[in-house]
Amino acid sequence: MDIAHALELAHRASEQVRGTTSPNPPVGAVILDSAGEVAGVGATAPPGGPHAEVVALQAAGERAKGGTAVVTLEPCNHYGRTGPCSKALVDAGIHHVFYANADPFPSAAGGADFLVEAGVETHFLNQPIRALQPWLEATVLGRPHVTLKFASTLDGFAGATDGTSQWITGATARAFVHEDRSKRDAIVVGTGTAISDNPSLTARTDDGLYPHQPRRVVIGSREISPDSNLAELGFGQYAGIPEALSALWDSGCRDVLIEGGPTLAAAALRLGVVDQIQAYVAPALLGAGKSVLNWPQATTMAEIMRFETTAVRQLGEDILIEMKRKDH
Amino acid sequence: MDIAHALELAHRASEQVRGTTSPNPPVGAVILDSAGEVAGVGATAPPGGPHAEVVALQAAGERAKGGTAVVTLEPCNHYGRTGPCSKALVDAGIHHVFYANADPFPSAAGGADFLVEAGVETHFLNQPIRALQPWLEATVLGRPHVTLKFASTLDGFAGATDGTSQWITGATARAFVHEDRSKRDAIVVGTGTAISDNPSLTARTDDGLYPHQPRRVVIGSREISPDSNLAELGFGQYAGIPEALSALWDSGCRDVLIEGGPTLAAAALRLGVVDQIQAYVAPALLGAGKSVLNWPQATTMAEIMRFETTAVRQLGEDILIEMKRKDH
Ligand SMILES: NC(=O)c1ccc[n+]([C@@H]2O[C@H](COP(=O)([O-])OP(=O)(O)OC[C@H]3O[C@@H](n4cnc5c(N)ncnc54)[C@H](OP(=O)(O)O)[C@@H]3O)[C@@H](O)[C@H]2O)c1
Ligand SMILES: NC(=O)c1ccc[n+]([C@@H]2O[C@H](COP(=O)([O-])OP(=O)(O)OC[C@H]3O[C@@H](n4cnc5c(N)ncnc54)[C@H](OP(=O)(O)O)[C@@H]3O)[C@@H](O)[C@H]2O)c1
Repeated sequence: MDIAHALELAHRASEQVRGTTSPNPPVGAVILDSAGEVAGVGATAPPGGPHAEVVALQAAGERAKGGTAVVTLEPCNHYGRTGPCSKALVDAGIHHVFYANADPFPSAAGGADFLVEAGVETHFLNQPIRALQPWLEATVLGRPHVTLKFASTLDGFAGATDGTSQWITGATARAFVHEDRSKRDAIVVGTGTAISDNPSLTARTDDGLYPHQPRRVVIGSREISPDSNLAELGFGQYAGIPEALSALWDSGCRDVLIEGGPTLAAAALRLGVVDQIQAYVAPALLGAGKSVLNWPQATTMAEIMRFETTAVRQLGEDILIEMKRKDH
Repeated sequence: MDIAHALELAHRASEQVRGTTSPNPPVGAVILDSAGEVAGVGATAPPGGPHAEVVALQAAGERAKGGTAVVTLEPCNHYGRTGPCSKALVDAGIHHVFYANADPFPSAAGGADFLVEAGVETHFLNQPIRALQPWLEATVLGRPHVTLKFASTLDGFAGATDGTSQWITGATARAFVHEDRSKRDAIVVGTGTAISDNPSLTARTDDGLYPHQPRRVVIGSREISPDSNLAELGFGQYAGIPEALSALWDSGCRDVLIEGGPTLAAAALRLGVVDQIQAYVAPALLGAGKSVLNWPQATTMAEIMRFETTAVRQLGEDILIEMKRKDH
């Protein structure tokens, strides 16, 4: 198997553990034996458990000797020259290491240097890995990576003028949202949404729950009824966005999804903490209605907030447009 | 060459004459010789000129004998058994005919029957051909096919609250709009847009004009200044949408593009004459602003107008979403 395919395999393994590894990064690793065959695949275990390289090495066993490791992130070097992952690779007799992203975390960085000094041929691929992006950005920012999600008609409405609302997007898009939730550390809504929609904020499959459930978080000061679904399931509440992000960071969250409503969404945008946007757009028009953003002031074109399109995907009849900030 | 590729070639030939053939359909034809090699490609000439099959047969010459014709639309049979296209194919010694769409126009239909009676093996492929769709629908509706185009931010705004406006979409999308204009029979705007923007409504390349220019049409009763770009280039003006569509039909237009503004767009939607929508969406947010539709009344979710997504395409940073009515 070539390196590009092995990296793809490592990436897929890491996608499967997204949401379960924070504050550690969701990493994937593939060990190829000396003949280039896949000997082991691994991904980061929940906090306290082994890192991806160690899981993959355990699966490969003796076949790791003289082999190649392909990893989505630079192997860590936590304890200097005795660091678990880089040292584990050397101890297992790995000859080549390819890693897609450099470790930005000061106390862990340096794994590549350790490998080189130990005589391992080490290659930095410098390739973006979707599953790692939120963790990498969070580490640099020192706060959780924030994705803002909204669903709207093509003319930008999240509901009708008279307050009636119903699912705007179709079943395929809704299923996709639940899968996406299952990969997040936390789902955040404002008190307005918590009170008016009585949401569960769980990640659901067709007939039950995903194994990983993100934390449920409400922002705002209004009280959430003790009879609500959220109260029954358990949730955290914070008065404002900065307080919530700081508390979530401290408790290990790196990748959070703000699901609205329009007031909280607009506030997060104005605060400048929205790193990514997921816009689910239905091929429908309402003409008038409630906007996806509850914007308190008038605008001029000079204030337009521009993003960079990173992915466009059709989900049944609907379209998911993913964007990131222009500046990172 | 197999039939699917020949049809693709015929389709591409027909795309190149879109806008120049009305009231005739933009048809493409490919003649394969008896060995299956491409012997001739043709597309409908402007009104009065030869149809696609005749153009392709002329290009093929003697090589048409024993060959195959692949056509996007059923060959016409205008004068019964002496009808030009079906008879021309028989006279040229064509043995097989494949056509993608049946002719819906009563006085021309019947070409396939004529071919079968003349001993030609005739196959109806029943495949949608993008370039023919507006003409086919117009023929059935008895009025021009109407595409509504708008450009907006992701939250559905066509401009800022304070009236400032500038290009919302980028250069790639704007170039695409001009190419699209060059394939239409007419471009329509309301008096509001004509007065406030002083548009030219021409189809422009980087350094000049496309060879085919659509007709320029303004709807509304307000007077357009004799100093305007439209007055200089020439344009038609009609008091309302039904009057405009009926006059455009009578003068041969089959495929018209309404480019706004929000008042005319909303009126066309409420009238039920919008067959297709082209939404150019920029990855940008304004929060507040002028909506793409100027909707006079409040809404309830029951009034949502749903469309069917037919194509999604990324144009630089922007996204073009194409939709058609659910009912056809
Ligand atoms: N289509 C969609 O994508 C979508 C998604 C979610 C919700 N919705 C709809 O949105 C509606 C609710 O939206 P909403 O706008 O009323 O409520 P919201 O955005 O869910 O919550 C607003 C609340 O957030 C709190 N908040 C905390 N920090 C804030 C800050 N810096 N600025 C502003 N607010 C802050 C405030 O709570 P306190 O006042 O309690 O302090 C505020 O009232 C529901 O009808 C729901 O169905 C639509
Ligand atoms: N982003 C985009 O995609 C886009 C595209 C085009 C324009 N725009 C912007 O839109 C603005 C102009 O829009 P607008 O809404 O003021 O004007 P508009 O939609 O261009 O024109 C409205 C006029 O259409 C006429 N009309 C004819 N039949 C009608 C009917 N059944 N219902 C309603 N109106 C009918 C009326 O003219 P009379 O009053 O003269 O009878 C009406 O005033 C400009 O600022 C322009 O830049 C944006």
